Amino acid sequence: MTLQIGVIGTGAIGQDHIRRLTQTLSGAKVIAVNDIDAQRARGTIAKYELDAKLHEDPHSLIADAGVQAVLVTSWGPTHEAFVLAAIAQGKPVFCEKPLAETAAGCLRIADAEQASGRRLVQVGFMRQYDKGYRALREVIRNGGIGEPLMLHCAHRNPTVGESYTASMAITDTLIHELDVLRWLLDDDYISAQVVYPRRTRNAHAGLADPQIVLLETARGVRIDVEVFVNCQYGYDIQCAVIGETGTASLPEPSSVLLRSEARVSSRILTDWKERFIDAYDFELQAFVDGVKGRGLSGPTAWDGYAAAVAADSCLLAQKSGKVETIAMQKRPAFYAPD
Amino acid sequence: MTLQIGVIGTGAIGQDHIRRLTQTLSGAKVIAVNDIDAQRARGTIAKYELDAKLHEDPHSLIADAGVQAVLVTSWGPTHEAFVLAAIAQGKPVFCEKPLAETAAGCLRIADAEQASGRRLVQVGFMRQYDKGYRALREVIRNGGIGEPLMLHCAHRNPTVGESYTASMAITDTLIHELDVLRWLLDDDYISAQVVYPRRTRNAHAGLADPQIVLLETARGVRIDVEVFVNCQYGYDIQCAVIGETGTASLPEPSSVLLRSEARVSSRILTDWKERFIDAYDFELQAFVDGVKGRGLSGPTAWDGYAAAVAADSCLLAQKSGKVETIAMQKRPAFYAPD
Amino acid sequence: MTLQIGVIGTGAIGQDHIRRLTQTLSGAKVIAVNDIDAQRARGTIAKYELDAKLHEDPHSLIADAGVQAVLVTSWGPTHEAFVLAAIAQGKPVFCEKPLAETAAGCLRIADAEQASGRRLVQVGFMRQYDKGYRALREVIRNGGIGEPLMLHCAHRNPTVGESYTASMAITDTLIHELDVLRWLLDDDYISAQVVYPRRTRNAHAGLADPQIVLLETARGVRIDVEVFVNCQYGYDIQCAVIGETGTASLPEPSSVLLRSEARVSSRILTDWKERFIDAYDFELQAFVDGVKGRGLSGPTAWDGYAAAVAADSCLLAQKSGKVETIAMQKRPAFYAPD
Amino acid sequence: MTLQIGVIGTGAIGQDHIRRLTQTLSGAKVIAVNDIDAQRARGTIAKYELDAKLHEDPHSLIADAGVQAVLVTSWGPTHEAFVLAAIAQGKPVFCEKPLAETAAGCLRIADAEQASGRRLVQVGFMRQYDKGYRALREVIRNGGIGEPLMLHCAHRNPTVGESYTASMAITDTLIHELDVLRWLLDDDYISAQVVYPRRTRNAHAGLADPQIVLLETARGVRIDVEVFVNCQYGYDIQCAVIGETGTASLPEPSSVLLRSEARVSSRILTDWKERFIDAYDFELQAFVDGVKGRGLSGPTAWDGYAAAVAADSCLLAQKSGKVETIAMQKRPAFYAPD
Ligand SMILES: NC(=O)c1ccc[n+]([C@@H]2O[C@H](COP(=O)([O-])OP(=O)(O)OC[C@H]3O[C@@H](n4cnc5c(N)ncnc54)[C@H](O)[C@@H]3O)[C@@H](O)[C@H]2O)c1
Ligand SMILES: NC(=O)c1ccc[n+]([C@@H]2O[C@H](COP(=O)([O-])OP(=O)(O)OC[C@H]3O[C@@H](n4cnc5c(N)ncnc54)[C@H](O)[C@@H]3O)[C@@H](O)[C@H]2O)c1
Ligand SMILES: NC(=O)c1ccc[n+]([C@@H]2O[C@H](COP(=O)([O-])OP(=O)(O)OC[C@H]3O[C@@H](n4cnc5c(N)ncnc54)[C@H](O)[C@@H]3O)[C@@H](O)[C@H]2O)c1
Ligand SMILES: NC(=O)c1ccc[n+]([C@@H]2O[C@H](COP(=O)([O-])OP(=O)(O)OC[C@H]3O[C@@H](n4cnc5c(N)ncnc54)[C@H](O)[C@@H]3O)[C@@H](O)[C@H]2O)c1
Repeated sequence: MTLQIGVIGTGAIGQDHIRRLTQTLSGAKVIAVNDIDAQRARGTIAKYELDAKLHEDPHSLIADAGVQAVLVTSWGPTHEAFVLAAIAQGKPVFCEKPLAETAAGCLRIADAEQASGRRLVQVGFMRQYDKGYRALREVIRNGGIGEPLMLHCAHRNPTVGESYTASMAITDTLIHELDVLRWLLDDDYISAQVVYPRRTRNAHAGLADPQIVLLETARGVRIDVEVFVNCQYGYDIQCAVIGETGTASLPEPSSVLLRSEARVSSRILTDWKERFIDAYDFELQAFVDGVKGRGLSGPTAWDGYAAAVAADSCLLAQKSGKVETIAMQKRPAFYAPD
Repeated sequence: MTLQIGVIGTGAIGQDHIRRLTQTLSGAKVIAVNDIDAQRARGTIAKYELDAKLHEDPHSLIADAGVQAVLVTSWGPTHEAFVLAAIAQGKPVFCEKPLAETAAGCLRIADAEQASGRRLVQVGFMRQYDKGYRALREVIRNGGIGEPLMLHCAHRNPTVGESYTASMAITDTLIHELDVLRWLLDDDYISAQVVYPRRTRNAHAGLADPQIVLLETARGVRIDVEVFVNCQYGYDIQCAVIGETGTASLPEPSSVLLRSEARVSSRILTDWKERFIDAYDFELQAFVDGVKGRGLSGPTAWDGYAAAVAADSCLLAQKSGKVETIAMQKRPAFYAPD
Repeated sequence: MTLQIGVIGTGAIGQDHIRRLTQTLSGAKVIAVNDIDAQRARGTIAKYELDAKLHEDPHSLIADAGVQAVLVTSWGPTHEAFVLAAIAQGKPVFCEKPLAETAAGCLRIADAEQASGRRLVQVGFMRQYDKGYRALREVIRNGGIGEPLMLHCAHRNPTVGESYTASMAITDTLIHELDVLRWLLDDDYISAQVVYPRRTRNAHAGLADPQIVLLETARGVRIDVEVFVNCQYGYDIQCAVIGETGTASLPEPSSVLLRSEARVSSRILTDWKERFIDAYDFELQAFVDGVKGRGLSGPTAWDGYAAAVAADSCLLAQKSGKVETIAMQKRPAFYAPD
Repeated sequence: MTLQIGVIGTGAIGQDHIRRLTQTLSGAKVIAVNDIDAQRARGTIAKYELDAKLHEDPHSLIADAGVQAVLVTSWGPTHEAFVLAAIAQGKPVFCEKPLAETAAGCLRIADAEQASGRRLVQVGFMRQYDKGYRALREVIRNGGIGEPLMLHCAHRNPTVGESYTASMAITDTLIHELDVLRWLLDDDYISAQVVYPRRTRNAHAGLADPQIVLLETARGVRIDVEVFVNCQYGYDIQCAVIGETGTASLPEPSSVLLRSEARVSSRILTDWKERFIDAYDFELQAFVDGVKGRGLSGPTAWDGYAAAVAADSCLLAQKSGKVETIAMQKRPAFYAPD
């Protein structure tokens, strides 16, 4: 049977998810859309020739009997209310990151979900569906390099706009590492420290770039993540796991090997959308399949909460220059990984 | 609307294509199946929970009014008849390679298709949909390495069964190179020569393995393709294009980079099905999308004919030890690439 | 003319240097040796068929009129006295690292050298002569990656013996990075911090392994050096420089590329002596050539002092867990790089 | 003791060898030089501050009692006479390739050397001393990839001058592969075929470039060597050995790994002199050490003969377009490898 989906927020990511649900993925159909900018919602229906109802109000979309599952791709601050509303209707909801603006908001969602008795929330941390990270995780779990002891990571963007602030280095950029590295190590963070290298002259005034975030996990794994958002040369994600008997590194995107002008070279991506493009497909197909039968298995509300708590400590560490503790509530059995 | 598809031949590839049409791809539904082994056809319907009619006879499936497009995944020798029958019904048909057992058979299909007035046939040369070959083709077309002058290729399987014969090295293994290299260079072959290196002790008696096939194209490009089907170490496809100002090589499959036991290493696939698994998805999605609107754009009946002609000359060259000419009829305008 | 050299300390490194002076390098001859273990000195003369005088006492060797230059390859604590004695005789002296046991000892040597009016001391930091580090330095100086902002380094040994202590991770292992990274960046350190990841089960009891040393330079470059001396998989030196517009990494040792057992792989060295074997040749040939004509240009007594000061702060940081300042006296003009 | 060497031919390679004998290598001294251009010989003595006698006539140099060993680095056609003259004097002689202009010339030298009763001749095929080829040979001999079955090689120069002729592709360029591949496989050639791909527009008129030389060995190994002397992008030597259980490829020259402008890349050399610069040092040090004691072990007069015979057949094949046999006399026991 085809899952009937309602989408709140038809901006960049919203339209991208509507495109893949309609043209690429299997077993789902977008039958309702809403955007605070109704004109944009109407344009989206036309652009993707959707047989979908335009809701004036997001809450009426969530309540629409025809809507079996909700996609929340509106601005971050609006996510909490829509997710809670969907849970209230007992409807599965895929929510783009961040799950909520604050750790507390995430907890409210987690509480509501547990109260509902079944998993209804999947958060849009697509990296957990990336083939490269999955292969890396398998090497670790198979004991291929012994117990992980250290991680050396880097999240580099070519450039960011004037509107990009130092805190967005945590909430918009590092947030993906904060989620995926917990999942990779099956571990939790206990502290964060931020150090500022010499500033690049290519960062707009007022933005400290690059930053290095030093994390420690409960099992003692030391993680360094370089966040460099004006690196100029490309969109480059690095993750090397150093274990007791070996090291394993995230695969580089596949590329033609070129010999030209005295260099042998491969391509580095420049557009972040290309880097995890397959992962977006897998995460949404998993959501559709999960709702229709086997149950949700993707990033949980608790993962959303954990990323939010870690982000909060990193934001503190950015200002204090000190090692800030990262303390989470005990994970409820409800969110124990299967 | 959802394309209603009938499948003839529910063996290894048939079931694989049924799986992806049903669970992975978008806009199609398998509503009729046939296999000479009815029991296997019935098993397939159950296995993939198909809402599909079991036809006793393949020709009744083709004639079934509900069937809008046909998939031919039966044994090679049966393909020609089924494709001709589908064309006779004016129904688009995706036919696994080989299109027909002989060049003449392919010409009969091409003639029938031209007589029908529109493109109805797509041949299952999935490598034309592989991201790596497409990126390689783009580098060549963008002039990144100047005019192509030489190709150094290799098609290596870990092992083959006792039933594998020397001629299958051409009709089953090299056939993929014969198709994809023409497409890659947008050129046609004019000669083939086969040389036999020292035999590996790991080939079963009677099989000359490896073989090197030397091809020349109309534009003078020299191609060497190593066909080594008992190479032991993995399933490894290599293709290096040497141009006037540089060289470009087919991307290696993406892999975790491991440092362990004094080696830094990446994975080589061992299962041929994994190597072009995405390409099978893209080729069938393109067939479904093509039938539903924009028209077929994949490998044509003429590509099937060209591969068959080249294969015939290679089979001759295997025995003669001489340089055998490869002569094709002039390509009809009907098959001019858009 | 052939430089007449006297060697104090015919142990592992002493004999290795005697071998290369005699059989590989050009323009030098070992004509006097001394070792506190006279028996070992005598054995060395025989082993390398040296036409050399055996001195009972190191100071008599230094004073020997026939000795034009001195090589100090005895135990660390004995270096300072022998170097000062050579300077007193106005004789050039190549001293293996460490130059002296303490920063103060190094300063005493620097003062004596300046008082002598000419460069007489070269310290055995062979990495400054490694082709890889030199190529990396050139990329940085040519502006190939913009101003350096961060360094991600690793110094990994397969295993160390029971006698290896945590402080030796600084004085024996990290000491090489402490020297070469200053030289690479043409910069000085201002602080050091040591963090301890989870301990490997392969380290002998009482040894904290691995350790991560975090350094900051005067120009704000942030450096992380992973010191992991029981990494099991090999002897692996990594150094990635992250600049404003790109990154440049220390070359991997050249290796045959092997495809075997489903892996494509290259060799990782396991013996530290092999990793910089060419650099030992270049540093000693430079010493011989420098003495005979153009003057010494290798690592100076000041480099010895700088490494000692940094090492002292790292040793403090190991215990304090705090960020320790690294403060050096102002570099005398005498030691300004040409 | 120091080997007293006389050098005939102080051109490009002659001066390069004089430089390394004088400034880099150990145990030798150039005490006599001759060049048909006396002015250039005199200039060389001054340039390298040689304590050497200028001989008006090459034969007087060979006869000079002070000359213990001869280096022949004059034009190819003059080599045979000088080598025979040295043998006549019982003096060891290092002769740059080609040993002689014809196979017959090489046989005359081999006969003279055997008549003298001891190994006196080393030919300047420096690749046998290259660390990369030696490591590749070791992998083969250790059975790391099973019996070798095929070799895929390439010898690519960026550009050649107007004076470069098609036959020089064999006598000047391919000659190095003809020697090193025999040595690599410990095998002899039995046939050669030359095929001409489409011509690059970057070759000067009249030069067929690139060429592909197909060789077969006595043990049935099939070798393809691409000779492309106007490849534009760099000086690039490739050699992949395909064995029964794996493949092994010649190491790439070590290089800084750069991430810049959306490419991750390594350097490709452009100057042929840099590619085997270490090998030239090793081959001459081996000659000096061999003469002084352990006896010559490098490329023999027989290797010179074998390369000449193979070259002759390749020159025939260039014109005939047919498979030309390569037939050598039986190797005398005198030249059996130790
Ligand atoms: N997973 C990823 O890699 C990734 C990448 C980019 C963005 N995102 C997240 O996706 C979300 C959307 O990002 P975007 O780039 O598409 O932003 P966008 O501004 O392009 O789109 C947001 C859309 O939501 C609509 N909207 C905002 N508030 C609304 C409300 N109250 N009710 C209905 N519609 C509302 C806006 O009008 C807009 O059309 C953000 O939370 C962002 O963090 C995730
Ligand atoms: N593109 C590729 O990479 C690729 C890979 C493997 C096979 N193939 C091609 O796909 C085709 C099938 O290969 P396979 O490996 O699935 O073989 P298979 O033997 O596993 O499956 C063939 C199926 O067709 C059925 N069949 C045979 N003749 C029939 C007939 N006359 N009517 C109805 N059903 C009939 C058989 O009973 C069997 O179930 C072959 O032509 C093969 O060359 C292509
Ligand atoms: N640059 C490098 O990579 C490197 C590597 C290893 C050692 N080293 C340094 O080289 C030095 C020697 O190290 P090693 O491994 O050869 O040690 P070793 O113990 O093998 O050799 C030291 C030799 O010095 C002799 N000796 C000690 N005190 C003496 C004295 N007072 N007078 C005369 N002889 C004396 C000892 O008898 C011994 O033979 C040390 O300072 C060490 O730090 C440098
Ligand atoms: N092994 C290699 O990679 C390599 C590379 C380049 C050249 N070579 C070989 O080295 C030899 C010299 O090459 P080159 O590039 O130095 O050439 P070159 O022309 O630069 O030098 C040759 C020198 O020999 C002198 N000469 C010629 N005939 C003479 C004679 N009869 N008596 C005395 N001197 C004479 C010439 O005046 C000239 O100075 C050639 O045989 C060439 O094939 C080998």
